[in-house]
Amino acid sequence: MSPEPTFYAYPFDAAFSEAVRIGNTLYLSGHIGDDDNGNLADGFEAEVAQMIANVAASLARFDLGLDALISVRVMLTDMGQLECFNRLFAACFSDKPLPVCSAFGVTQLALNAAIEIECVARL
Amino acid sequence: MSPEPTFYAYPFDAAFSEAVRIGNTLYLSGHIGDDDNGNLADGFEAEVAQMIANVAASLARFDLGLDALISVRVMLTDMGQLECFNRLFAACFSDKPLPVCSAFGVTQLALNAAIEIECVARL
Amino acid sequence: MSPEPTFYAYPFDAAFSEAVRIGNTLYLSGHIGDDDNGNLADGFEAEVAQMIANVAASLARFDLGLDALISVRVMLTDMGQLECFNRLFAACFSDKPLPVCSAFGVTQLALNAAIEIECVARL
Repeated sequence: MSPEPTFYAYPFDAAFSEAVRIGNTLYLSGHIGDDDNGNLADGFEAEVAQMIANVAASLARFDLGLDALISVRVMLTDMGQLECFNRLFAACFSDKPLPVCSAFGVTQLALNAAIEIECVARL
Repeated sequence: MSPEPTFYAYPFDAAFSEAVRIGNTLYLSGHIGDDDNGNLADGFEAEVAQMIANVAASLARFDLGLDALISVRVMLTDMGQLECFNRLFAACFSDKPLPVCSAFGVTQLALNAAIEIECVARL
Repeated sequence: MSPEPTFYAYPFDAAFSEAVRIGNTLYLSGHIGDDDNGNLADGFEAEVAQMIANVAASLARFDLGLDALISVRVMLTDMGQLECFNRLFAACFSDKPLPVCSAFGVTQLALNAAIEIECVARL
């Protein structure tokens, strides 16, 4: 595997890339629970489901699944929703090992999302 | 060293792993200043001391010390306490080189902790 | 390239290093828009310009330019200024590929800065 970084641009005009691959490590930009039109899903659980679907779609471009995640950072506008996220997220892994995680409360996110996740995965 | 990731689960039910090792890099989940019963230490300095002890305990599973840290991210609910953290943290390294760091104020942390640290270390 | 980490201390007393190099990966401490005397630039756009200049100066110690960045994390005290940052930041890359990014609102930053950026680069 080449040590050169490979950048994967978003299919729209953006100030950052969707993903960068360095050797076996894949860095993803932060994902929120919006659809292709930039509309947030309605309600926290729906946002989490859409956000996880967006992460899965990014990983799928590299033939990876969610079990390729090694590290995630979770930003919430209401830390009272962390347990709900944890439950929904862990359910995606069943028997597979979970990534490391840090989580913290933020004042605001893009599009006024309630949650954002930043991921590192392993090819 | 194998390029395969190795996941180290927490000894209790959790939505994430305690650590993931990829080659020579070790990613740790965020640590706060709580004891094995999930009780926070009393007061900021005690929280920092317990938090650093928790990081040291995670590193010790890999026969590493605090000097193995290469990058830390510090989240505080009161940035006025950053200098206190800096002083306590730097004192753990004496002559050894310090990791890189970013620090920022957050609205809330797990268990209403005053501080959380997310670490990357080198085996 | 040696797998041993190399730490680059700040030229002043600090609780962390300016940069750590591990193989081909370079981790930088968070940068804000302050000058060598610790004075913040006046106004958001000036802070961003100074902050980017500070990142560029760190990278230049390793003979790298901004295009070596692979991952950035942007912390803002006012998420309403994210688009302004995005515009100024993307303009530094012209045709070159952009790093991945996550951005979030924080309660406070060091020196009461309006923005901080944490970077990972590739040698």
